[in-house]
Amino acid sequence: MKKVFIAGAGMTKFGELWEQDLRSLMVAAAADALESSRLGIDEIDAIYVANMGGSSFAGQDHLGSLLATELGHYVPAYRIEAACASGGLAVNTAWHALSAGLYRNVLVVGAEKMSDVSGGDVTKGLARAADDEYEAYFGATFPSLYAMMARAYMHEHNADRSDLAAVSVKNHNHGSLNPKAQFPREITQEDVLNAAMVSDPLGLLDCSPVSDGAAAVVLSTKVTSVRIAASQVSTGSIRLHDRPSLTSIDATKRAAAAAYKQAGISVPDISLAEVHDCFSIAELIALEDLGFAKPGDASKLIKDGTVYRDGTVPVNTSGGLKACGHPVGATGVKQIVELYEQITGAAGKRQLKKDISFGLAHNVGGSGGTAVVTIVEHV
Amino acid sequence: MKKVFIAGAGMTKFGELWEQDLRSLMVAAAADALESSRLGIDEIDAIYVANMGGSSFAGQDHLGSLLATELGHYVPAYRIEAACASGGLAVNTAWHALSAGLYRNVLVVGAEKMSDVSGGDVTKGLARAADDEYEAYFGATFPSLYAMMARAYMHEHNADRSDLAAVSVKNHNHGSLNPKAQFPREITQEDVLNAAMVSDPLGLLDCSPVSDGAAAVVLSTKVTSVRIAASQVSTGSIRLHDRPSLTSIDATKRAAAAAYKQAGISVPDISLAEVHDCFSIAELIALEDLGFAKPGDASKLIKDGTVYRDGTVPVNTSGGLKACGHPVGATGVKQIVELYEQITGAAGKRQLKKDISFGLAHNVGGSGGTAVVTIVEHV
Repeated sequence: MKKVFIAGAGMTKFGELWEQDLRSLMVAAAADALESSRLGIDEIDAIYVANMGGSSFAGQDHLGSLLATELGHYVPAYRIEAACASGGLAVNTAWHALSAGLYRNVLVVGAEKMSDVSGGDVTKGLARAADDEYEAYFGATFPSLYAMMARAYMHEHNADRSDLAAVSVKNHNHGSLNPKAQFPREITQEDVLNAAMVSDPLGLLDCSPVSDGAAAVVLSTKVTSVRIAASQVSTGSIRLHDRPSLTSIDATKRAAAAAYKQAGISVPDISLAEVHDCFSIAELIALEDLGFAKPGDASKLIKDGTVYRDGTVPVNTSGGLKACGHPVGATGVKQIVELYEQITGAAGKRQLKKDISFGLAHNVGGSGGTAVVTIVEHV
Repeated sequence: MKKVFIAGAGMTKFGELWEQDLRSLMVAAAADALESSRLGIDEIDAIYVANMGGSSFAGQDHLGSLLATELGHYVPAYRIEAACASGGLAVNTAWHALSAGLYRNVLVVGAEKMSDVSGGDVTKGLARAADDEYEAYFGATFPSLYAMMARAYMHEHNADRSDLAAVSVKNHNHGSLNPKAQFPREITQEDVLNAAMVSDPLGLLDCSPVSDGAAAVVLSTKVTSVRIAASQVSTGSIRLHDRPSLTSIDATKRAAAAAYKQAGISVPDISLAEVHDCFSIAELIALEDLGFAKPGDASKLIKDGTVYRDGTVPVNTSGGLKACGHPVGATGVKQIVELYEQITGAAGKRQLKKDISFGLAHNVGGSGGTAVVTIVEHV
């Protein structure tokens, strides 16, 4: 098996990008990553596109071929989908082909264009990430699924809404330094607690936004300073009600255990993480499932500063899904972009001052139906 | 790189299956392939789902996780999409991971449920396989894109509608022996020429139907009698009007050349083929692009019996997309199922009497935006 490295990374701004469509977003991120990699398009052996809602939100499938067409580069092209975990899964799939030595350099582009359809249609499209017949059909949209997880968490761990709000406050603090973030500004705990209620106990500022955007990485078997030390996927029940716990995502636990084993490291070796904060509750659960905190203790890591940018394990320095935005197919790739930029000193105003040996990306599909954990190593 | 074998294959009936939904189709095909492989579900290391229109036709994405849930087997699960080439591409993607030695046995399920939405919505959903903004938006649906190819072919090669009709007559002849075919009955050239016109020169019986169905294979690094000798993908312009020729699909030519090279064989070594006859014209073009006939000569192979089931290179013994049916995500997997069943003597009434050394499957996405060529070897 060949070792796999990151040769370049790039992304568009995330936000409501009225001047851009799905194809222009894909092309822009691809060009940015290619420029960063200093590879020519002719050196790219295959294209992987991560996207969930091309059909639901943009009336377009077959995005591998579409991107190959726009780039004028007719190599094998793949579209990989696992709802909001599409990005992480595409990186994993590309990593397989590179590991096998079948391709030398590949371009992975995650993209989503969500703002061209109505809010109702976005909610309906996103519900297809859960079990449509058993959940969405009965009104359980994504905010309500995560609200049930939040309610259970608050009950089980004697937590309150301020524990949830702390996640959003931190991620907006981080995102305020990211010019590509959809909401590059700070918010207060009061803002979160007073925001309009979406699905009790989750208010508007507990929820990641509807976003347009794309992110891309060039993966290569040629040695660079950033290696993919582990790439692991697991699944769990797509239906929340069939899950063994409402306050833990078993797919994350399995993927994380496999990833730590593959990288030959343990939790304390991780000095930077991007985790899937689609809702505030999701980051608390992620920090616990990934082993950073014991069940019920995740919010302590926020309160004591551990996961802030000057802490020992900064989490979501990009701003996370909450402040940076969540174009669903792009998110898992954007997480890798953030790790790459922080490790290579390309993170601009949000550059961390410390050396990072291992960074972790955690990407979830649906309410936990898929989880992908990627560990990158500074070599 | 590990060698990859087919350990088992199965499929549902194709047709308008009013009693079945997308999930029950996937599960039925998976169970059929697992039974054929004599492997237990616990021996499956990953799941690959090929599907195009989960979102458009069935209101469900995240099908990898959904199938893992229905099987109660929470391994890595992938959904691969390249329009009607999703099935071939999923086999290719699974083959990458097996080649790398990352998984030992994987389940690949192709599925589509198309009959639960209106005909107009099917046409609209399918148009997302082409360039929605540059083609479908201006009324160029799939029958009309292929009709333009047919018109160009007839002009260039002095062919007529009977040359096209011969494809449908042959494939219904073959399909009449396949109990899983959507239309297991013969038709005459008169039937084809007198059928309602869909998009001139393509009549109703020049077109593959709207279908429900699923097909599955178990791929393994454990030696069996059927090896995947080559799996190659290429892309071409997703837009017909940007293609170098209207009478040839360059993606097919590139994928075929790479596949013959990878298998170390040439065209005469192929003794059985399943090719992508989404429209009658598509099979003529495929036979030429794959090297079985010179440009303009494909229909001679039908007239002289070469590609009939008692000829030297039977083509579409399953009945092809035309008679067996075309649940788009399932088609590329079904082609591999047919090759496997013919090679292992499991093809029932349609079993060929000869030994098959090499079989070829040719799967196209859109009007030629993606092509996948798989060569299987009887070892």
